[in-house]
Amino acid sequence: NETKPGKVLYDFTAEPGNNELTVKEGETITITNQHIGGGWIEAQNSRGEVGLVPEDYIEVRDVGNAAPPDLSFFDAFAPTSASNGNDPWSVWNTDATGGSSNNWASKPEGTQTGKSAAADPWSSAAQGHPQAYQGPAEDDEWDDEWDDVKSSGGYAESESGESGAMQRGGMGEVGPVWSYPETQLDCVVADPKKGSKMYGLKSYIEYQITPSTTNRPVNHRYKHFDWLYERLLDKFGSAIPIPSLPDKQVTGRFEEEFIKMRMERLQGWMTRMCRHPVVSNSDVFQLFLTYKDEKDWKTGKRKAEKDETVGVMIFSTIEPEAPDLDPIEVEQKCEQFSRFTRAMDDGVKEILTVGQEHWKRCTGPLPKEYQRIGKAFQNLSSVFNSSGYQGESTLTDAMTAAGKTYEEIAQMVAEQPKKDLHFLMETNNEYKGLLGCFPDTIGVHKAAIEKVKEGDKLVATSKISPQEKVTMAKRVSIMSYALQAEMNHFHSNRIYDYNRVMQLYLEEQVKFYETIAAKLRQAHSQFTTM
Amino acid sequence: NETKPGKVLYDFTAEPGNNELTVKEGETITITNQHIGGGWIEAQNSRGEVGLVPEDYIEVRDVGNAAPPDLSFFDAFAPTSASNGNDPWSVWNTDATGGSSNNWASKPEGTQTGKSAAADPWSSAAQGHPQAYQGPAEDDEWDDEWDDVKSSGGYAESESGESGAMQRGGMGEVGPVWSYPETQLDCVVADPKKGSKMYGLKSYIEYQITPSTTNRPVNHRYKHFDWLYERLLDKFGSAIPIPSLPDKQVTGRFEEEFIKMRMERLQGWMTRMCRHPVVSNSDVFQLFLTYKDEKDWKTGKRKAEKDETVGVMIFSTIEPEAPDLDPIEVEQKCEQFSRFTRAMDDGVKEILTVGQEHWKRCTGPLPKEYQRIGKAFQNLSSVFNSSGYQGESTLTDAMTAAGKTYEEIAQMVAEQPKKDLHFLMETNNEYKGLLGCFPDTIGVHKAAIEKVKEGDKLVATSKISPQEKVTMAKRVSIMSYALQAEMNHFHSNRIYDYNRVMQLYLEEQVKFYETIAAKLRQAHSQFTTM
Repeated sequence: NETKPGKVLYDFTAEPGNNELTVKEGETITITNQHIGGGWIEAQNSRGEVGLVPEDYIEVRDVGNAAPPDLSFFDAFAPTSASNGNDPWSVWNTDATGGSSNNWASKPEGTQTGKSAAADPWSSAAQGHPQAYQGPAEDDEWDDEWDDVKSSGGYAESESGESGAMQRGGMGEVGPVWSYPETQLDCVVADPKKGSKMYGLKSYIEYQITPSTTNRPVNHRYKHFDWLYERLLDKFGSAIPIPSLPDKQVTGRFEEEFIKMRMERLQGWMTRMCRHPVVSNSDVFQLFLTYKDEKDWKTGKRKAEKDETVGVMIFSTIEPEAPDLDPIEVEQKCEQFSRFTRAMDDGVKEILTVGQEHWKRCTGPLPKEYQRIGKAFQNLSSVFNSSGYQGESTLTDAMTAAGKTYEEIAQMVAEQPKKDLHFLMETNNEYKGLLGCFPDTIGVHKAAIEKVKEGDKLVATSKISPQEKVTMAKRVSIMSYALQAEMNHFHSNRIYDYNRVMQLYLEEQVKFYETIAAKLRQAHSQFTTM
Repeated sequence: NETKPGKVLYDFTAEPGNNELTVKEGETITITNQHIGGGWIEAQNSRGEVGLVPEDYIEVRDVGNAAPPDLSFFDAFAPTSASNGNDPWSVWNTDATGGSSNNWASKPEGTQTGKSAAADPWSSAAQGHPQAYQGPAEDDEWDDEWDDVKSSGGYAESESGESGAMQRGGMGEVGPVWSYPETQLDCVVADPKKGSKMYGLKSYIEYQITPSTTNRPVNHRYKHFDWLYERLLDKFGSAIPIPSLPDKQVTGRFEEEFIKMRMERLQGWMTRMCRHPVVSNSDVFQLFLTYKDEKDWKTGKRKAEKDETVGVMIFSTIEPEAPDLDPIEVEQKCEQFSRFTRAMDDGVKEILTVGQEHWKRCTGPLPKEYQRIGKAFQNLSSVFNSSGYQGESTLTDAMTAAGKTYEEIAQMVAEQPKKDLHFLMETNNEYKGLLGCFPDTIGVHKAAIEKVKEGDKLVATSKISPQEKVTMAKRVSIMSYALQAEMNHFHSNRIYDYNRVMQLYLEEQVKFYETIAAKLRQAHSQFTTM
């Protein structure tokens, strides 16, 4: 898990005994673990102190493909750490050992079968790397698991069920697309209830989630969402950006504000997951939404935690309805997506920064100023009242009214951000989270592409057979189809989300300015020319 | 000319060779001469350096009646400086020696005549204070002038003409009021032209002033306005607040901006003077507006400079159509006006301070922020354009339009103060100037009231005759009528001016917010829900 530099955007004070780290705005820290989840990251300050900091408080230097992507899973079953990286097999050993051959075989419409030894990099890899058999304990354990999995009919079914979901992906007018269900799954997160355990020593908030399919509510605590997040990240992370959950709370344990805000963000997160045809169709996600009882939940949980179709394995369950892609094209696509996501990340962060400042001004100095203007008018009005001069009550009443109007405007200005800027910020925050996942996803692709590029050299030095190189290319092509389908999913959602949020923002802004104009027109009407 | 402490409100950098003094915001200075005119005051800093500073840059500690009012004119003809202050006669000697008796006598409907020696403090004063005759050279010179004046029929006429103007004052429903002409005088200051003399070595701006009466334009330079101001201040200062002229320029000699601004302010000053029945009817003011040619102007100028009906003398030309006021009532009125003007001065300054800050924000950080919001939307839009995803041009066009709209709003925000706040500030600045004159005017009254209060003691010690005390009381009553008429004039103008400026301000504010709302509604309409 490589470290990255990070810049602290806002002050954050650690809650005692919460394993948190106090940081100051502008401070540079080292991110020691970005995958804590729940909106937290583990960071180390210049004094060597390590602790958790809210993700949103830190600007992580986007290492996209600049830094070497986390290829650890490539080496999971590599014979020796020495042969890592420059051993082309390390890529394929993974899903080879992961039993992808069986996997492929298990698909009725599979284009390869485990029987064709020549077409199966697995056996040749075996020959090329006998050491691969002398792997660490996990391997055997993992193999056990695998048998276990195979033996468990229900599991196998669910497995094929999922891969089925993914195989239904096809070609849209925009290129590869996931296959979308007729009716889109949705759910409502509501009715947060304070629960407690250990005789009330520990208390927590339980949210009620009601899926549109069953319309039967289930209860979950934040830690359950966090568990779901971890499962989805493990399983789909290499192919699908899984945005992290809303922050773990930063202040006050049970403040209304905080609970409302977290619920709103959990709703946003769930909605986004529901919208994703692959994620929403997965067993683990369905379990989360539709478990019947405690026992059902516990069993499903154990099953999900044993799921081994994780990491790059996920690609082995994809069967695109299209010819293999030319490696050059694959690389171009990957580059294009990488450029776009990085550019959008900058654009989104710019909006967040500007929005943050605007929010501060609208809730701070600006209303104070309108208030002072209002007070100044009212003060002058009451001075005028003391003149003892007859017949100026019309003026003084009008000036008092005008003053009060500016005090009302001050109030409006201070409350406006909650009505419009809030949603603009929330949406962009969501996208900041989503975009933060792409560097890893894209990193996986880049690494695989590099391997294929080395292919010819490897064939020349007869490290691999031409056939094996073809297989490598085929698999990269599959990864590329997946990435394209995901990008198209991302784009269509993005267009929908930004249309919606911009409309909402401008709508509220119009209301805001129209109300002010109306109030001022009313105040104006009270003055009389003589 | 007593000194007053002053606080520097804004930084001011002296123009070299302009006899100006560089001051820093917050610095405390000593005002050595507040009556420089032209919006300048002479000040001394802590290092003892003396120079001119723009009046508006300094907050003069309002010495209203806290500090002893400038009574110098009371002592103008006092026999010895030793007898100053505690010599009740010093008050009356002034206008007595000023020939008020002749003056009174010169009025056909005068209630006193110079013939009744008993009723004439003049002769008794002469007897009581023979030294009064042994005054300094000016006295004789002044006396010559006086004869001179008397001999000059035209002058005498104008004199009576003026006193006539003032005698027409009567009782309105609000109490004493000046007599207002059927048609109010007005004038237009326009068409500033750059002139030069000394072969172009020295250049100046000449303004064209066209009075509504003759509709014949005359030309005047700023220094002529300044001259007029000094004349009016000398002549009417004790009875009528004469606001000082707009600042002498602080920066750039012939910038468009500055000339336009000064013309606008000279217009405001002239309009205010025209509105005043006493001032606008005075010879010197009429001369300024209607002189026929250079010669006419020069003669009138000399004549005006010789005018001796200045200072408290002006009261001797007033003949109220009402019974004498009870000294108690006089004092109450005076107190009330003093309280009101001080309170209004605070109110006006508050508006100016708040307005100043609001102006800074509206032309500084606020538009910058809207600009950044606009840019952020446009940047994100162009990122979206680079997605290569089909059919999002509607969104990107709409987002670009929204971004441009916020840039337009930034522009509007920055320009708005010139359209509304400007006039609110100008009007309040005018009133700040006017109110700054009241402490002196009111000081004159307070001093006179004190003298009358001492009256009984003086009669008891037979320093003055009961008859003389009655005369003193009568004259204070006259001063009070004048002050009441002036306050009523001030109040009616104030009500008119504030109604006008508040209407204008709110009207422009409504337009401003309505325009923004319309622009945003237009931007909103370009987004489409799907």
